[in-house]
Amino acid sequence: MIMAQWLRFQYQGKPGLGQMQGEQIAVYEGDLFQNPQATGETIKLTDVTIDIPCTPSKMVAMVDNFHALVAKLAHTVPTEPLYFLKGNNTFLAANQTIRTPDSYSGKVVYEGELGIVIGKDCYQVNEAEAARAIFGYTCINDVTAIEILNRDPGYAQWTRAKSFNTFGVFGPYITTDVDPSKLTVKTILNDQERQNYPISDMIFSPAQLVSLISQDIPLLPGDIIACGTSVGVGSMKPGSKVSIIIDGVGQLDNLFE
Amino acid sequence: MIMAQWLRFQYQGKPGLGQMQGEQIAVYEGDLFQNPQATGETIKLTDVTIDIPCTPSKMVAMVDNFHALVAKLAHTVPTEPLYFLKGNNTFLAANQTIRTPDSYSGKVVYEGELGIVIGKDCYQVNEAEAARAIFGYTCINDVTAIEILNRDPGYAQWTRAKSFNTFGVFGPYITTDVDPSKLTVKTILNDQERQNYPISDMIFSPAQLVSLISQDIPLLPGDIIACGTSVGVGSMKPGSKVSIIIDGVGQLDNLFE
Repeated sequence: MIMAQWLRFQYQGKPGLGQMQGEQIAVYEGDLFQNPQATGETIKLTDVTIDIPCTPSKMVAMVDNFHALVAKLAHTVPTEPLYFLKGNNTFLAANQTIRTPDSYSGKVVYEGELGIVIGKDCYQVNEAEAARAIFGYTCINDVTAIEILNRDPGYAQWTRAKSFNTFGVFGPYITTDVDPSKLTVKTILNDQERQNYPISDMIFSPAQLVSLISQDIPLLPGDIIACGTSVGVGSMKPGSKVSIIIDGVGQLDNLFE
Repeated sequence: MIMAQWLRFQYQGKPGLGQMQGEQIAVYEGDLFQNPQATGETIKLTDVTIDIPCTPSKMVAMVDNFHALVAKLAHTVPTEPLYFLKGNNTFLAANQTIRTPDSYSGKVVYEGELGIVIGKDCYQVNEAEAARAIFGYTCINDVTAIEILNRDPGYAQWTRAKSFNTFGVFGPYITTDVDPSKLTVKTILNDQERQNYPISDMIFSPAQLVSLISQDIPLLPGDIIACGTSVGVGSMKPGSKVSIIIDGVGQLDNLFE
């Protein structure tokens, strides 16, 4: 298959689906995961507002899934994928503004991550079936109100720290037919590179994650697995511009206020 | 307002909504949270299959929310509600069978809990508004694959241990216009009482929970807050019958295999 980059957008007040062709969008109709058809129409990318590229029924987010980060934190290398659910209220598209929660005055951090987008129902599948259930990949900024995470002495508040509105940023595209093991995740904050790590350092690969998580929870088309971040996480000052760049997958730009 | 008990059901292959009237169901049409109208029809309760009484967009589940359990575990009394999200794949109605996950051979425990059902959109609301946003209450069995919870040395797997299919049991009714502070939660396992604790022992009351959680995450009609359990949690052997009984709210019966 040839690599394709799918996106959803608003154009003249209406939602649309399309595939990138240079600076143009080739418009499609139908469901992204059920063989959508090209209409023949094209629109300039600069004329649309980009939406999130799919609507996940859930975002499963990984903890401690890169060797470099686990080593830096002096954690044990996990023997199984460690995850939580990020709230569906959090989803935010490229070019939109990440906002500090009204109820929180602490540091807010970026976490650049690779996102796996599921393309078909899968439940209790093996690794080969899991690989076929992956529709494509996207860029994720797993934004976190970091001072909430460990402020209770006995309970780490993963879901809460990561589930404020605008904290689940992904897009701009879903890119199909790429080999994730060759990818690199970069985070640029105000023109400074803050993260630059290879996906090859992952503890559980995308196909392993999908297979293992599917033993627990049915995965549905459009569901996203956020593969976890690695070293270089840091806080954003209001007014910052943050970009998650995965060459060959996309560049996810947002402002933070 | 007068107390009402709402349920959803399957009758002659079709879904229905109704209100309990003794052993009969008074049938309603429309959306439970948008002023449904009585059709005048009645059906015997024994002629229907009970469904979950609403379809939550999320189930927010509390940790360490009863003084007796916190004391028994020698935990610190939380200064803020501690919660996680239970997967939407878990939902199971009264009288259905809770099943051991295929991928797990450890102990599965019941946790009897009071469930808050949200009736209207609420985001960043105060306690008085929160109280008005509560539609009613239901019985919850927050089933847990307990041996997963703390088996990783560094990461407590709350969402995973509690998000297997059939582990989010609630119903049979949503009961409106009850004072939760007067309620008692009992769990009966194979005719033996295993839990019997008063809601008055809660650390954060229902209105406080709704207000405080709404500071973080928008709550929607049908969303459920599982208030957390107290002492007496224990494991179920295959073939067990488990009932969560909250007098004045309902009795939630299930088999476990």
